[in-house]
Amino acid sequence: MPTVDDVAQAAGVSRQTVSNVLNSPEIVREATRQRVLEAISSLGYRPHASARRLRTRKSATIGVRIDPWRDGISGAVLDRFLHKLTEHADARGLRVMVFSAADPDDELARIRRLREGSDVDAFVLTATTHGDERIRALTEQGVPFVAFGRPWDPETSAVRHRWVDVDGRAGVAGAVRHLREQGARRVGWIGWPHGSGTGDERRAGWEAACGVDADARAALARHVEDGVTEGSRAAAELLALPEPPDAIVCASDSLALGAMIAARTAGRPALPVVGFDDTPVAAAVGLSSIEQPLDDVVAAALDLLFGPAGDDVRPNPSSDEEPTDRLLAPRLVERRPGHLALDAIPGT
Amino acid sequence: MPTVDDVAQAAGVSRQTVSNVLNSPEIVREATRQRVLEAISSLGYRPHASARRLRTRKSATIGVRIDPWRDGISGAVLDRFLHKLTEHADARGLRVMVFSAADPDDELARIRRLREGSDVDAFVLTATTHGDERIRALTEQGVPFVAFGRPWDPETSAVRHRWVDVDGRAGVAGAVRHLREQGARRVGWIGWPHGSGTGDERRAGWEAACGVDADARAALARHVEDGVTEGSRAAAELLALPEPPDAIVCASDSLALGAMIAARTAGRPALPVVGFDDTPVAAAVGLSSIEQPLDDVVAAALDLLFGPAGDDVRPNPSSDEEPTDRLLAPRLVERRPGHLALDAIPGT
Repeated sequence: MPTVDDVAQAAGVSRQTVSNVLNSPEIVREATRQRVLEAISSLGYRPHASARRLRTRKSATIGVRIDPWRDGISGAVLDRFLHKLTEHADARGLRVMVFSAADPDDELARIRRLREGSDVDAFVLTATTHGDERIRALTEQGVPFVAFGRPWDPETSAVRHRWVDVDGRAGVAGAVRHLREQGARRVGWIGWPHGSGTGDERRAGWEAACGVDADARAALARHVEDGVTEGSRAAAELLALPEPPDAIVCASDSLALGAMIAARTAGRPALPVVGFDDTPVAAAVGLSSIEQPLDDVVAAALDLLFGPAGDDVRPNPSSDEEPTDRLLAPRLVERRPGHLALDAIPGT
Repeated sequence: MPTVDDVAQAAGVSRQTVSNVLNSPEIVREATRQRVLEAISSLGYRPHASARRLRTRKSATIGVRIDPWRDGISGAVLDRFLHKLTEHADARGLRVMVFSAADPDDELARIRRLREGSDVDAFVLTATTHGDERIRALTEQGVPFVAFGRPWDPETSAVRHRWVDVDGRAGVAGAVRHLREQGARRVGWIGWPHGSGTGDERRAGWEAACGVDADARAALARHVEDGVTEGSRAAAELLALPEPPDAIVCASDSLALGAMIAARTAGRPALPVVGFDDTPVAAAVGLSSIEQPLDDVVAAALDLLFGPAGDDVRPNPSSDEEPTDRLLAPRLVERRPGHLALDAIPGT
């Protein structure tokens, strides 16, 4: 039986390139791909059952890491993502296996084991970071995967791979513009400390759309760790300014819930506050929030991995110009400040 | 090759009993079990690979349904359960597959398909209900499963099966007693409409421990749909009574968050409010809550399915007196009312 090494030698490419041709053909240059396919054909090489199952989409199984449970409102977005992934996968006859991992190295080790046992055919990475080591490692190993999260630096951007992300910058800019159209003139910002790709993008959206000068931007922005108490403290500071904000946009619903409570405490229950992720708590307390379109994210991720829904086989892109990524627009879910309408409740 | 039917005939039992002996030996009477094992041995019957894998605990896979995403704080407890299940399963070398289902019938159909493909060896049912049809169906089909949730009626109670649940009655009673020790004399209750097993148990805990007469109990209790607005409205009513409660215990964190907001609005920010499930929002806003011990729940569920962790093979209980269920005690996570300490924030 010929092996991957035989194919690699015959085609004059690395073992990894053969694996890429089998598992991620669209990331391989057309000429190389043809040479490898000819070697496979002439040698009579039969790829691994799992790779074959993946290509024919017969009961393929997708693996996804579940993070350890944390107390925190913002973790809800990845739980929601998992719900959506499971629903979309079921509808396509795909299966979803979940696993835990202590850190990126552990995640890579678990992915290796799940691949060796042919239990899982493709993976979804979540929460990509600066210098994300998983992207190069999985690409080099020829493991089919799609990332929910874009590459955040030149190194990972240089690795051609599949990813889907949500344009947080556009989402925040849209919310800020909407608040200004509603009459806000000084929109404040409560975000995270610099350095997280996601947080910096969201802040950039506020900067681009807030329409005030650099001095006012410096006065109207706070950068704190994620949390309700942190958000309320930052909002209280902003509201105590000589020229306080007349609306506040936040990088998360945790921060926004804190800002909402601080606004009530400061006697400004109608202050518009906008969070991010539209978590259950935002819906529950009547907080406006920027919603990631997770149905679209999941559909795009599965399309990139397996081809459009309804296809029986994976498409074979004719060149490496075929897009391998999708950046989707979030939308503002607007709720009336004071939605709980406590003032209207008898007896209060 | 002998079949299950051959074994059943030789042992003078039903096909289902043979399946139970293979998959759930502890729910079969000792004498019957011995007779079936002798028939298996004398005929040389070899059970299905998946059943064998399950018994030897070699890369067994557990299936669990994920509910559709709902806006609501209380859904977080099943997400937390899934995180814990994945962590404990990984530590034992077990795998977790998730799937969605539209209703109990659809769940049973999906379980059947996953079993036929030998993809999943055992299942975890969540959210058991009155007259839960899944319990009898899976028991009759000999599908190994454990329920997170007790049987709620005589019919499902009569089916010997594995389950783990949390004693909500004891949890609420303990919280009420604790509030009374702290000086509360009129502890109010905001729960769900009668008819849900879980909600009725939690209310029974309040009734047993509140220490007031039937008239006062009628005045101090409200039963509403789950939700923050519903909780705040009910709490506002209670706080407007001539003799208002001096503490409120709620059936969920959604209701409790509403009660907490209503208490602030009514000028009583220090009113003790206790929720249920210790969801992220409770931790985030500093709300006391009764926490389900999900690590213990998951450990007990896996012990019931696969035997104690560390065992290489499943234990063989010597009689059907072996317990097949576990009722665990929740604990009160106490947080200081007004934990957010907004009054202490500079500028407010």
